[in-house]
Amino acid sequence: MSCDTRFKEEATALGYSFEGELKIGGKYVPLIRDGRSLYVSGQIPRVGNEVVVTGAAGSQVDLSRAQLAAKICVMRALALLQRSLGSLERVEAIPSISVFVQCAQNFTQQSEVADGASELLFRILGPAGAHTRTSVGVLQLPKNATVELSLVATANSSA
Amino acid sequence: MSCDTRFKEEATALGYSFEGELKIGGKYVPLIRDGRSLYVSGQIPRVGNEVVVTGAAGSQVDLSRAQLAAKICVMRALALLQRSLGSLERVEAIPSISVFVQCAQNFTQQSEVADGASELLFRILGPAGAHTRTSVGVLQLPKNATVELSLVATANSSA
Amino acid sequence: MSCDTRFKEEATALGYSFEGELKIGGKYVPLIRDGRSLYVSGQIPRVGNEVVVTGAAGSQVDLSRAQLAAKICVMRALALLQRSLGSLERVEAIPSISVFVQCAQNFTQQSEVADGASELLFRILGPAGAHTRTSVGVLQLPKNATVELSLVATANSSA
Repeated sequence: MSCDTRFKEEATALGYSFEGELKIGGKYVPLIRDGRSLYVSGQIPRVGNEVVVTGAAGSQVDLSRAQLAAKICVMRALALLQRSLGSLERVEAIPSISVFVQCAQNFTQQSEVADGASELLFRILGPAGAHTRTSVGVLQLPKNATVELSLVATANSSA
Repeated sequence: MSCDTRFKEEATALGYSFEGELKIGGKYVPLIRDGRSLYVSGQIPRVGNEVVVTGAAGSQVDLSRAQLAAKICVMRALALLQRSLGSLERVEAIPSISVFVQCAQNFTQQSEVADGASELLFRILGPAGAHTRTSVGVLQLPKNATVELSLVATANSSA
Repeated sequence: MSCDTRFKEEATALGYSFEGELKIGGKYVPLIRDGRSLYVSGQIPRVGNEVVVTGAAGSQVDLSRAQLAAKICVMRALALLQRSLGSLERVEAIPSISVFVQCAQNFTQQSEVADGASELLFRILGPAGAHTRTSVGVLQLPKNATVELSLVATANSSA
C-alpha cells in the first residue's frame, strides 16, 4: 500500500478531509522547497475555515483531544508535502518537527500530545517518517489553537 | 530599485537606523553561513542599546506596536544578511522564519503581529522574500521584549 | 586536547555521566543525519531516568540552577553527536540552537540561562562551537523540565 493510500485512509479514520484549499492565516507561504529540503509553515488544526480544536490542554482540552489537534496539524503538513512532491512516496525523511502546545501551567504532557503527530508520520510514511522532535508548552497560539506544528522534510533526488 | 535601497527606505520610514553595531545579548554569534544557507539568531526589537518595544501584547502592548516590534526584528535580521552577503540582492529565499510573541493569555493575534515582519520581507526582497512561518505566543522573552524573530535564508550560488 | 577529552572533563566537572542509554520521552528519534547536517531532538535535563532540574526559572529555580539545566541539555546533545559521528572532532559548526526556558512571567534572563549551554559549546568544540541562538521563555515543558534545547550541527565532509 502506498503512502498516499495510507494518508487517505488515515484522513477517513479521523473523519476529516484534507483536500481543497488549505487556508493559512497570514502573509506568508505554506511551503518552500529548497533543493531536497521542504519547509512547511506552522500548521494549526484548521479544517476548511474552522479551527476544530481550541483552548488550553490540561484545562479546557483533555489529552486525547489535544492529540487529535496534533494529528490534524500533521495531516495538513503531509497534504502540503503531497501537493508539492506529487506523492508522499517521495518523502525521504522528516529531519525535524516542532510541536507547540497551548497548555495550562501545570500540564506537562507535551510529549504525549506530540505523539499523536509522530505516530501518524510513522504509520503513513513508514521508515521515512522517522523524525527528530521538539515539543514545548506555550501560553497561547494563533486563533486560540491548541497545537501548532511545523516541519522540515527531505525528498529523494528524483523528486 | 535594489533591495538595498528599499531596505534603507523602510528603515527611514520606521524612523530607526540599522547601521553600526547590532548588539546581541549572550555568548553566541548573530549569523552563521553554511554553504548557501544563512542562519540568523533570534532578534529582539533592539535599536542601539535599547529594546524599544517591551511587555506583553494584548495587555501592555497593542497590536500595531507589537507589529512595529516584529518589523524592527526583521530589519535587524536583514541588516545582518546584508553585511554577510554584501547585498540583499543575493538573498534567494527565506525558507523559514519563527516569530515568538510575548502575550497575554487571551491574545490570539500572533499571526497578525508576525505579518508586520512578513510584509517587510516581501516589500524589500520582492519574490525572494517568500517564506514559511511559525508564530507562537510565549510567556516571556529576553529583556522583556515583545517579539523575538529568527530566520534561515538562502543565498544564490554566486554569493 | 581533543574535543572528546574536553567533553569527558566537562561531564566530570558537572558530576554527571552521559554514557549509556539517553532516554527520550516519545515516539521519535534522538538524531537524524541528512548529509552533512545533523538534527538533534529537544533535550531536557534528564540523567538516566530522572529529570534533574524541574520547575519554573525565576520562581522555583534560580538562575544558576537553570544554567545547570541548560548545560545538561547541551551535554546530552553533544553525546548524541559524538555517538553518531564517532568523535566530536568531526563537528564543523552548530548552525543553530533553540533554548526554551520554563519561567515565571517576570523572568527575563532567558539569554543568561542559555549562556550555560553556549559556553560549553565553545569550551568543548572550540571555534566549531560557534552557533546562532534563539532563547524564549515558555509556560511549561515536558515532564516539568526547566529547559529544553534542540540544535542543528554540521559535520565535515569526511564524516
